[in-house]
Amino acid sequence: MSFKATVLTLYPDMFPGTLGQALAGKALATDTWSLETVQIRDFATDRHRSVDDTPAGGGAGMVMRADVLATALDTTVAADDPRPRLLMSPRGKPLTQKMVRDYAASAGMLIVCGRFEGVDQRVIDARGLEEVSIGDYVLSGGEIAAQVLLDAVVRLLPGVMGNETSGQMESFEAGWLEHPHYTRPAEWEGRGIPDVLTSGNHAKIADWRRAEAERLTRERRPDLLPPRNTPTGRDKG
Amino acid sequence: MSFKATVLTLYPDMFPGTLGQALAGKALATDTWSLETVQIRDFATDRHRSVDDTPAGGGAGMVMRADVLATALDTTVAADDPRPRLLMSPRGKPLTQKMVRDYAASAGMLIVCGRFEGVDQRVIDARGLEEVSIGDYVLSGGEIAAQVLLDAVVRLLPGVMGNETSGQMESFEAGWLEHPHYTRPAEWEGRGIPDVLTSGNHAKIADWRRAEAERLTRERRPDLLPPRNTPTGRDKG
Repeated sequence: MSFKATVLTLYPDMFPGTLGQALAGKALATDTWSLETVQIRDFATDRHRSVDDTPAGGGAGMVMRADVLATALDTTVAADDPRPRLLMSPRGKPLTQKMVRDYAASAGMLIVCGRFEGVDQRVIDARGLEEVSIGDYVLSGGEIAAQVLLDAVVRLLPGVMGNETSGQMESFEAGWLEHPHYTRPAEWEGRGIPDVLTSGNHAKIADWRRAEAERLTRERRPDLLPPRNTPTGRDKG
Repeated sequence: MSFKATVLTLYPDMFPGTLGQALAGKALATDTWSLETVQIRDFATDRHRSVDDTPAGGGAGMVMRADVLATALDTTVAADDPRPRLLMSPRGKPLTQKMVRDYAASAGMLIVCGRFEGVDQRVIDARGLEEVSIGDYVLSGGEIAAQVLLDAVVRLLPGVMGNETSGQMESFEAGWLEHPHYTRPAEWEGRGIPDVLTSGNHAKIADWRRAEAERLTRERRPDLLPPRNTPTGRDKG
């Protein structure tokens, strides 16, 4: 049974987008996963097909209506559908590689792409939407965030990555950033490759990579290190 | 002078992707910003047009070659081009809304999209590429990360957002997550809108929104609060 993604959006034409090419595109073409888009506007009830309205209490922008989105959800997804129901939102839980792995082990996911200033809080509460954020910045809509999430998940589905071991040695999997990479030519613009990497000594190479990964993490992202290894606390400033 | 983005990639067909529609697409059509893609493979020198090779020291995956990427950069971008030169990478500096604002105030950006296991460290060093990460997860390539970055930046360019004040009241701009939103209908599935929002009392509405933003941030993202307001430290666990 393949991984099934359902995306509710006002811009179905944005999909599959980047997901239609390369790794994710090949996996889509071979039914390793499927992608269904639902146009939220199709569930509007007035003659203008409105999906948004001005924010209660005033202020800038528009808010996506609870009733229209709820009808779209209820019509599209069976009540007993076991897939997580996510809303891409900067207020959501920050996406981590651990969450990505968990999603990749599930039957699929339902993703609502927010637009405008936000979505009426009542439909988030009433339909149990889990808010997920891909980072601490603001996008023009949830569509590209949904593609990020799906790209991260799809590459971990069985058979998608050419080399299965690849996913286990990269950033965040071991709790720290990945070590630097080098490849041919052995010398370029007077710059060589660290001697250890051409030594053929696999134990020393592994040691060097682990040490470099730890050094990079300590320098760049001490917040990722376990507390006992952190010299001056977890401040990210 | 409009904002100029240059993207170096092995998948130029992925662009403009989501950036060709909605807010970013309209701004692209009206020359508020421009997007140039460069196919890195065009700068390969062997008859197989290789852009990658096996990692020095062994291991899974492939590494993007320093020489090919350097030639692509040197040919595409003038030495005195003042734009930041970024490499999308999970090892990079985590993107924040503050960084997005700074980029939006600049002349544009040059973005290298990594693929494979990574990019040869020597070209990162030799060409002064700044590594930027959109989040703590791993993607199949930098293309979608570049689109996230550009989407976040383009929406802040002058004239792009319909309502200029909109950008100043959203998540992260004031240092915390955004308050909940509500819109019509006033009652939906037995759920009302908080009374204060329909009171017409603008001072009380502002107070409620600020309190809700702080409550949400405290509940979900205490790491975003300034230290003095943090009850138990900055742990994100």
